[in-house]
Amino acid sequence: MVSRITVHKSRLVLGMAVLGVLMAPGLALAQDAPEMLLQSNANILWTLIAGVLVMFMQAGFACVECGFTRAKNAGNILMKNYLDFGAGAIAFFLLGFGIMFGTDVSGVFGSSGFALGGANGATPDGQWTLTFWFFQSVFAATSATIVSGAVAERTKFGSYIVISIITTALIYPVSGHWCWGSLWLGDAGAGWLEGFGFIDFAGSTVVHSVGGWVGLAGALVLGPRIGKYASDGTARAIPGHNIPLASLGVFILWFGWFGFNPGSTTTADGTIGYIAVNTSLAAAAGMLGAMITVWLKHGKPDPSMTMNGVLAGLVAITAGCYELSPVGSIVIGAVAGMVCVFSVEFIDKVLKIDDPVGAVSVHGVCGALGTLGAGLLAAPGYGDAVGLFYGGSIDVFFVQALGVAVVFVWAFGVGFIAFSVVKAVMGLRASKEDEIKGLDLSEHGTEGYNGFQIFTVE
Amino acid sequence: MVSRITVHKSRLVLGMAVLGVLMAPGLALAQDAPEMLLQSNANILWTLIAGVLVMFMQAGFACVECGFTRAKNAGNILMKNYLDFGAGAIAFFLLGFGIMFGTDVSGVFGSSGFALGGANGATPDGQWTLTFWFFQSVFAATSATIVSGAVAERTKFGSYIVISIITTALIYPVSGHWCWGSLWLGDAGAGWLEGFGFIDFAGSTVVHSVGGWVGLAGALVLGPRIGKYASDGTARAIPGHNIPLASLGVFILWFGWFGFNPGSTTTADGTIGYIAVNTSLAAAAGMLGAMITVWLKHGKPDPSMTMNGVLAGLVAITAGCYELSPVGSIVIGAVAGMVCVFSVEFIDKVLKIDDPVGAVSVHGVCGALGTLGAGLLAAPGYGDAVGLFYGGSIDVFFVQALGVAVVFVWAFGVGFIAFSVVKAVMGLRASKEDEIKGLDLSEHGTEGYNGFQIFTVE
Amino acid sequence: MVSRITVHKSRLVLGMAVLGVLMAPGLALAQDAPEMLLQSNANILWTLIAGVLVMFMQAGFACVECGFTRAKNAGNILMKNYLDFGAGAIAFFLLGFGIMFGTDVSGVFGSSGFALGGANGATPDGQWTLTFWFFQSVFAATSATIVSGAVAERTKFGSYIVISIITTALIYPVSGHWCWGSLWLGDAGAGWLEGFGFIDFAGSTVVHSVGGWVGLAGALVLGPRIGKYASDGTARAIPGHNIPLASLGVFILWFGWFGFNPGSTTTADGTIGYIAVNTSLAAAAGMLGAMITVWLKHGKPDPSMTMNGVLAGLVAITAGCYELSPVGSIVIGAVAGMVCVFSVEFIDKVLKIDDPVGAVSVHGVCGALGTLGAGLLAAPGYGDAVGLFYGGSIDVFFVQALGVAVVFVWAFGVGFIAFSVVKAVMGLRASKEDEIKGLDLSEHGTEGYNGFQIFTVE
Repeated sequence: MVSRITVHKSRLVLGMAVLGVLMAPGLALAQDAPEMLLQSNANILWTLIAGVLVMFMQAGFACVECGFTRAKNAGNILMKNYLDFGAGAIAFFLLGFGIMFGTDVSGVFGSSGFALGGANGATPDGQWTLTFWFFQSVFAATSATIVSGAVAERTKFGSYIVISIITTALIYPVSGHWCWGSLWLGDAGAGWLEGFGFIDFAGSTVVHSVGGWVGLAGALVLGPRIGKYASDGTARAIPGHNIPLASLGVFILWFGWFGFNPGSTTTADGTIGYIAVNTSLAAAAGMLGAMITVWLKHGKPDPSMTMNGVLAGLVAITAGCYELSPVGSIVIGAVAGMVCVFSVEFIDKVLKIDDPVGAVSVHGVCGALGTLGAGLLAAPGYGDAVGLFYGGSIDVFFVQALGVAVVFVWAFGVGFIAFSVVKAVMGLRASKEDEIKGLDLSEHGTEGYNGFQIFTVE
Repeated sequence: MVSRITVHKSRLVLGMAVLGVLMAPGLALAQDAPEMLLQSNANILWTLIAGVLVMFMQAGFACVECGFTRAKNAGNILMKNYLDFGAGAIAFFLLGFGIMFGTDVSGVFGSSGFALGGANGATPDGQWTLTFWFFQSVFAATSATIVSGAVAERTKFGSYIVISIITTALIYPVSGHWCWGSLWLGDAGAGWLEGFGFIDFAGSTVVHSVGGWVGLAGALVLGPRIGKYASDGTARAIPGHNIPLASLGVFILWFGWFGFNPGSTTTADGTIGYIAVNTSLAAAAGMLGAMITVWLKHGKPDPSMTMNGVLAGLVAITAGCYELSPVGSIVIGAVAGMVCVFSVEFIDKVLKIDDPVGAVSVHGVCGALGTLGAGLLAAPGYGDAVGLFYGGSIDVFFVQALGVAVVFVWAFGVGFIAFSVVKAVMGLRASKEDEIKGLDLSEHGTEGYNGFQIFTVE
Repeated sequence: MVSRITVHKSRLVLGMAVLGVLMAPGLALAQDAPEMLLQSNANILWTLIAGVLVMFMQAGFACVECGFTRAKNAGNILMKNYLDFGAGAIAFFLLGFGIMFGTDVSGVFGSSGFALGGANGATPDGQWTLTFWFFQSVFAATSATIVSGAVAERTKFGSYIVISIITTALIYPVSGHWCWGSLWLGDAGAGWLEGFGFIDFAGSTVVHSVGGWVGLAGALVLGPRIGKYASDGTARAIPGHNIPLASLGVFILWFGWFGFNPGSTTTADGTIGYIAVNTSLAAAAGMLGAMITVWLKHGKPDPSMTMNGVLAGLVAITAGCYELSPVGSIVIGAVAGMVCVFSVEFIDKVLKIDDPVGAVSVHGVCGALGTLGAGLLAAPGYGDAVGLFYGGSIDVFFVQALGVAVVFVWAFGVGFIAFSVVKAVMGLRASKEDEIKGLDLSEHGTEGYNGFQIFTVE
């Protein structure tokens, strides 16, 4: 399983280093040959563009979470998404990046690169470090922003900011270090899970599950929104106020995912195209899987669930997008779409945990599903690993299961502690009056749709 | 006219093949020289990015069609746009791509590459094939999604999905093969129309007209929405419910078009910049052409028509974006903007065909216009062809007219048959009650703007 | 200070010219070596993609300005944003580009390149010129579209178009020539301010301040909206009608800014990554600076002001994004966020100038601030200049102050004259009845939200 570290190395582009092909002996290229610089520039170009696409996913999350909740909390949920990126980028700059990618300590966390200390924009090494930081910072913000959906419509704004900073500065980078630690400094930064060959190319577990599990912890600590469950425990649907906005948000996320997955090569090589194919087909299959499931189950094709199916397929293919074939991607996407429907209803109706936008199912559950699936469906001719269904070792699957389990324990556990401490210290939940009035007026003194909105009595 | 095949070949990038310039004799580069790989990687990078921009056009279509129709059908039209891509991508994967680009049979259709059989992510050839597939799959989805606008607010959801699949798997790829068949396999895949030198660089006819003509067939078979025409036959305007959303949609389409047109090089060469210039100027001129026309005609600058003018200019320049000069692009854009206004009114008031968003005029009529215009305005110094106005052969124009005509017959004809068969077999039109109530509640059991929307009585 | 011209030259990519590194003596590359062509293609690719991202900022401005104003003017403000790009692109094609980048006359204006005369898509020189034109045309449109926010909700549509054309064809390109004239033709096009070493890498002053100062002139000439100030002069808040739309707009602008700033290299080199880092951190710091300031000042974290803080940080870092370190970028962003809050209130409550969306503060004031800040914070290891705080010459700061001052005088002055002349000749302000009724109905004969909107009595 040492091969995974090798794979990671091939994703590692420091200074003038370029694709192995360019360094093949027969070509006899000097380290400073123009070809080296051209490929290095191309890698920076691609990583930057991909990072920009991922940055735009913040807008997607904002639209989805706003559209799927009520008008009276529209400004509040948007503000939370803004702060996930605003406070998150600064927190990741000061602390998170160094913990995730700095010099490894016992495989558990990193210990250098805080505040990008020593990075210099004039050297190729420094230019790569800064580009890589940008790409990773938007990933960190993605993970944090998943949480806001699960705790929507009832969390105090100031308390949420504290949780968001803890997620970006601590929870996300520590488990991230276990899986991706070597991506910046190579062996010097390698975490313990990647040493076992854990497959999570673009972050089904590292990014999405972490966000989903922290959100689950938050939803549990907070309890359900007022009116969500009847006195007999029956779950009541609280529909979102703006499906067109949510729909646009899903499209934006889908668009950004073509930076998220193919961009995770951080190398402008020939594999980025097929990663996009896998991403696209999994999204389509996830849509169909969820729509058909909900249609058969409830008699009508529900738009919200169909859109969540797209996200479920995207989350699930994220781990294995570099390792699966197109057919495998359709399979994993379709299964994720179906599972998402059952998971949303299970969490809502059986566990009675109020997750207003389905973030736990889409990101937590389907992230785990996709990570396990990569161990089964990794195909010859794509990437480096071979999954169980193609004759690979059962060990590959076990390592995937191990990764899913330990990251759940870490993210849910520390998330639960964080939410509980914040609750005890500064309060977590808005007052009953504020929640009923809506957080826009109570927390921000504004309305989302001034002179336009109808306040429904609830 | 054999030269067109040559042009297509220069757009064909298989494995290590790169720009002709790089293979000029004097440079004496071996096939496996690093420069070859660098250019090949750049082509994959550009084609992928362009494809991602085109994918985002789905969001644009969704916003435009949703914003230009009524709130009670908002979720339904969004779902149709989702399914155009979701079901469409799978259908194009299984069937469409092979029919469009596979080994040619008599110039009429392709016969290989179904389900990307044999593509391998580890080889340069396979990587290019997969990248090319991604780019073409988003084009197919574009064509299909045009239809939903023309048949909006009255079509049953399940029936629409069937039509969408037929479009993507059969109608679009067959005529597409005639014009672009050689783009994947070179001469082995060449269709009959491209053999005559038919100019349609990025798909005014191949993509937009096809969508428009299928939509026209649908609008005819369905008949107008309830209330659209008074008992004396007078057309009644049914304004859209969300102009800001539609406006954003047009901007998104415009943005994506910079992948659609320049990306159709599928090569990262020096022509992509001027293709963007032509695209941008045609859009601007289309906007001005439509706005001034409607202002003179009706006394006020109508926002919906102005926005449709942008799309008209973009559709029209799509065929000739590689062949026209900037001045020619302004001319063709301005004419398209003007024609669009008259066409919308002619279809609405004279033909009495109810096309809620003007899709037939924008995509069908202006696609044909732009295809013809390319035969007139193809300029020296840009691309390979020379149009009639610059001293080129009248034959160039005749071939353009031939292409426009046969694609109309094919797309409208098969579209008409498809809609008629679906109507007979499973029903096409929502019930009167459902249409009045709105398709969101009747077909999907949800509202677009829950707790927010005012239901108007109509 | 002659060094600035040298810097500009290194951004100048004509034909086969490429990065200095590739032309280092040791490498002995011929001018027509394949590496030259590859880098040239990469430069065109990057400049095109960056330009497309900037083009999309038009959608961002449209959403922000629409969302922050009232529903009854939604279509009108969108139309103004459309026309800024539609009429603007044509005006910049015919006149603006030549004035800004053509052969220099006395350092004051350019005099060639009108209508892209002589550009040829078949030659490398022509391809670069056309690509560069595209990139610059979207910058011109950005500057023009800033004005519409400051004069929103009360300006006649036809009069606005005239102002927009004057901005794009005259005001913007003349001061732009002073600062950036050499970017196309090198020394042959150099303006007077860049000769002194004026630092404005991506246009804090050239683009944003110019738009802000023209907008200030317009707001002054027009006077406040009806109801904005009570009879005793007290300012009254007129909240925007759609915060989710505005929020999405800010995200879109943020996204596009990653084309605006890194794209201003117009070269695919290793610096684009750190420019993105600086841009991202300044935006985050601007958000926090504005939010914390307004929270402390008024007791609640206001969404509109927080979003404007993001834009303030982005505007401020635009001048120095190539010259500052990440830490410097955080400083300049945070200061801009804070200053923006005070500036908005000062202009609103003390000067009693009605700027509905805060465009003068965000673009004018923070543009000036960022330009001055670049003279203080330009850091060793980033770019070419060294600011006062890092031991640089006080002259660097004086030149920045000079540039800020003369561009204010030019843009505000000519803007004031232009608005005054238009007012005298064709009228500038909508009638009282039209303003109260809303410009959508009065100017365009439509509603923004037909069958959906509540008209509030005001």
